[in-house]
Amino acid sequence: MFLMNCWYVAAWDHELIDGRLLARTLLNERILLYKGDSGRVVALKDRCCHRGAPLSLGRREGDCIRCMYHGLKFDATGKCIQIPGQDNIPAKLGVRSYPVVERDHLVWIWMGEPERADPEDILDFPYLREPQWKGIPGYLHYDANYLLIVDNLSDFAHLAFVHTKTLGGSEEYAYVTKPLMMERLERGFRVERWHMDAPPPPFHKKVLPAAQKTQNVDRRNIGHMHIPGNFFLFTLFSPAGTGADKGNMDGAKEYRNCQFMTPETDRTTHHFWIYLNNFEGGDANISRSLHASLIEGFMEDKHIIEAQQRAMDEDPDFKLLAVVADAPLAHFRRTLDQLIEKERAPAA
Amino acid sequence: MFLMNCWYVAAWDHELIDGRLLARTLLNERILLYKGDSGRVVALKDRCCHRGAPLSLGRREGDCIRCMYHGLKFDATGKCIQIPGQDNIPAKLGVRSYPVVERDHLVWIWMGEPERADPEDILDFPYLREPQWKGIPGYLHYDANYLLIVDNLSDFAHLAFVHTKTLGGSEEYAYVTKPLMMERLERGFRVERWHMDAPPPPFHKKVLPAAQKTQNVDRRNIGHMHIPGNFFLFTLFSPAGTGADKGNMDGAKEYRNCQFMTPETDRTTHHFWIYLNNFEGGDANISRSLHASLIEGFMEDKHIIEAQQRAMDEDPDFKLLAVVADAPLAHFRRTLDQLIEKERAPAA
Amino acid sequence: MFLMNCWYVAAWDHELIDGRLLARTLLNERILLYKGDSGRVVALKDRCCHRGAPLSLGRREGDCIRCMYHGLKFDATGKCIQIPGQDNIPAKLGVRSYPVVERDHLVWIWMGEPERADPEDILDFPYLREPQWKGIPGYLHYDANYLLIVDNLSDFAHLAFVHTKTLGGSEEYAYVTKPLMMERLERGFRVERWHMDAPPPPFHKKVLPAAQKTQNVDRRNIGHMHIPGNFFLFTLFSPAGTGADKGNMDGAKEYRNCQFMTPETDRTTHHFWIYLNNFEGGDANISRSLHASLIEGFMEDKHIIEAQQRAMDEDPDFKLLAVVADAPLAHFRRTLDQLIEKERAPAA
Repeated sequence: MFLMNCWYVAAWDHELIDGRLLARTLLNERILLYKGDSGRVVALKDRCCHRGAPLSLGRREGDCIRCMYHGLKFDATGKCIQIPGQDNIPAKLGVRSYPVVERDHLVWIWMGEPERADPEDILDFPYLREPQWKGIPGYLHYDANYLLIVDNLSDFAHLAFVHTKTLGGSEEYAYVTKPLMMERLERGFRVERWHMDAPPPPFHKKVLPAAQKTQNVDRRNIGHMHIPGNFFLFTLFSPAGTGADKGNMDGAKEYRNCQFMTPETDRTTHHFWIYLNNFEGGDANISRSLHASLIEGFMEDKHIIEAQQRAMDEDPDFKLLAVVADAPLAHFRRTLDQLIEKERAPAA
Repeated sequence: MFLMNCWYVAAWDHELIDGRLLARTLLNERILLYKGDSGRVVALKDRCCHRGAPLSLGRREGDCIRCMYHGLKFDATGKCIQIPGQDNIPAKLGVRSYPVVERDHLVWIWMGEPERADPEDILDFPYLREPQWKGIPGYLHYDANYLLIVDNLSDFAHLAFVHTKTLGGSEEYAYVTKPLMMERLERGFRVERWHMDAPPPPFHKKVLPAAQKTQNVDRRNIGHMHIPGNFFLFTLFSPAGTGADKGNMDGAKEYRNCQFMTPETDRTTHHFWIYLNNFEGGDANISRSLHASLIEGFMEDKHIIEAQQRAMDEDPDFKLLAVVADAPLAHFRRTLDQLIEKERAPAA
Repeated sequence: MFLMNCWYVAAWDHELIDGRLLARTLLNERILLYKGDSGRVVALKDRCCHRGAPLSLGRREGDCIRCMYHGLKFDATGKCIQIPGQDNIPAKLGVRSYPVVERDHLVWIWMGEPERADPEDILDFPYLREPQWKGIPGYLHYDANYLLIVDNLSDFAHLAFVHTKTLGGSEEYAYVTKPLMMERLERGFRVERWHMDAPPPPFHKKVLPAAQKTQNVDRRNIGHMHIPGNFFLFTLFSPAGTGADKGNMDGAKEYRNCQFMTPETDRTTHHFWIYLNNFEGGDANISRSLHASLIEGFMEDKHIIEAQQRAMDEDPDFKLLAVVADAPLAHFRRTLDQLIEKERAPAA
């Protein structure tokens, strides 16, 4: 049960380069995505209405697609415009098309009622287009429901245990009771945490100049999670004790990370992400190192998250027990449930 | 839901050479097939009535089979005739046997009511025994319901798109509206199509003498599809414009192709086939080339047909929309449905 | 549907060496097993009560286990004793623990009501601790319900057919009608069979001195099968005709074999076994040879038993037909069914 009337990320734009046909299941639907000759991105149901063959095995012709089983041709709206060997084309022949928007290297899709699709509702993450922010787009596939990844990103507590040697750093800080600042938003939440005077975590240490690798840092994480599963993380490292928490940004290094979790099926997820930095200048190896470190960290998450999914598959009655740190994810899931319920309720 | 009271191809006879035990699932039933010392082909339920062990893991003894778990022995009718260590054999101990007929290199089986099995009902395809027709028996396994293969063979329209570079030839002809000649039969249909004055399709071109490779041909296909899923295709190529459509057979080359689709399960199929030619004389490489070309073409079909099956698995409510070219398959499926309904109806 | 209130073998003790975490599914439950620093063996539900992550991906700390997702720590009784970053630990946070007993190299677990677990009920097989009995502990995994393995061990009839060239010897003896001595026990059965004056079976022949390999032997098998699935087999070989059946043990060689079938799931089984001999003295190659021969023989069983399971999966309505030799297994299954029924009946 997914929220339908909202935008989901369907692809990075480079996945549609050169007009290639991308077959991708989204929210349990097989979708065909491609960029037509006109530059327009097209999203169609990936199943010919005639005999059910995948259109992704077909041939793109301009902005149209031809099924290569019996040659039926469909335009960008899904309308059938040619049946080889037959003059009359019944109006009912066609496949469903979906609203899509290409923006800042992301392709967004609307799987719900087309007339409610408003591109204004797409969340803006300007760092994807600002040239001083550098990074490499990433994609991972999870054998887990997308909300388990949302959960994972909703707490910083797991950094210490799952990512001790990659993204997190030492375990010690985790044992200090310190409430996270959490703000409930209408469609998500904002969390903020400072971690003062600690060695830089491994992923950050790798990209620091030699002299800074051994100096402690103050670290601030600000996370935003938005429905249906869009995560933005602002991370700042500054030399310990220089007062970054009071506004002094001298010597600070910053990261901008976004992660988009799009359900593939009820138990699998597409994970689109990028980890941007504003300090690499001309040294592309910094992006490359960060990209590799993030994959290393995500693999640690994936290992546990997919095990969670299996535990739930085995025992659908298993009730999770919350701890204090679960407040953000509890708020998120409650808000999402309400939106889904509202969407499914018959109109008054 | 299969038609039970009819003959299906169970095997090529070479699959039973040297008395070997062939375990094969047919219409969702595990069957054991073998040729006994007497030359008789035996078909038994492949499951010992004692503890359920497969008889195909057993040992053939003459025309009998011994289960090699506890040694029970069954004769060719499925009757238990020995229990090691036990003198008395209860009459109820036995496994089901099935009527089988070996004819023209094919082994036919009757999965329905045994008393209704009449070998006279087996379709005759004399080219399988006539020495001037040469070819190599083929077998393919499909992850798709057998009727999707029947559908595929019911139209020539797909030749242009699926098999452009193998069995079909150019796409152009497909766009010309030209009704196929179709004759409805009591248990199937007959279709005929002439395709005049075109380059020889790749599979045929390969086996032509060098001088003929560049000459256009007139091509005639006559197909017969019979319930439950037996297909005969007569193909003729003659030099373009020499009047083959008016009866002049000078320089014509002919093919005889049969294809038997036998359900393995609801969503998998055994596909037995041979592509015979009458012009190779002593050059066995012509059969070999045709055999390889046909496999190449069938693989193109298989790729699409198995994708259709997956589309149907995902959405059992998906309703196919017919085009004009679907008349033969529509007639076939309607006829088959009526026979199945009749078979399952309680006797008056 | 398993009998819950009884002891099952969960592991060989060497599987827990060095405090390693062993994740093992038993009776459809994922269990974590480990030996704490105190030497105590701990068995816990392998699922953190917080977010469902497997504790087997966690870290052992003394006799405790820490979940390495968010750092919750559980003691050997399953009680949560630490939540990083949170002072108050709600009493309901905890995971189920199971009674376990380590004895004679075996780890036994009680999956039913903990208050009924009495270590006195564990069957004694003293040969596991007596130094003159030598052997190598074995483990096999079966894709079959554990009762199919119990069945297999309940008759000696299959030795002749399944294990002709390994554990059994010749087929001939099987055709002689000779009742097995069977004694019904309250929770199982005892069977005994003498097989006089036959060549030694291959597994035994391999470990005999050259001069004895060609001499016939009298062979006695005594088997005990106990609920839920514990099998003890006493095997004796003595020179043919020397009167072992009348008590003369001169020149006899003996084996002690135990096999423990523990359900993993409804259709998979853990099989723990050892084949002990009392005559190898310092020649460890005898144990090694016997271990290899037994695996060879068990693989023959496994091949058939897993095929039985598939036959049952395909047709859950299939009714097995009994022969005379099935009396022991019929008694065993009836007794087990009654115990399960009694266990599940509401208390008066």
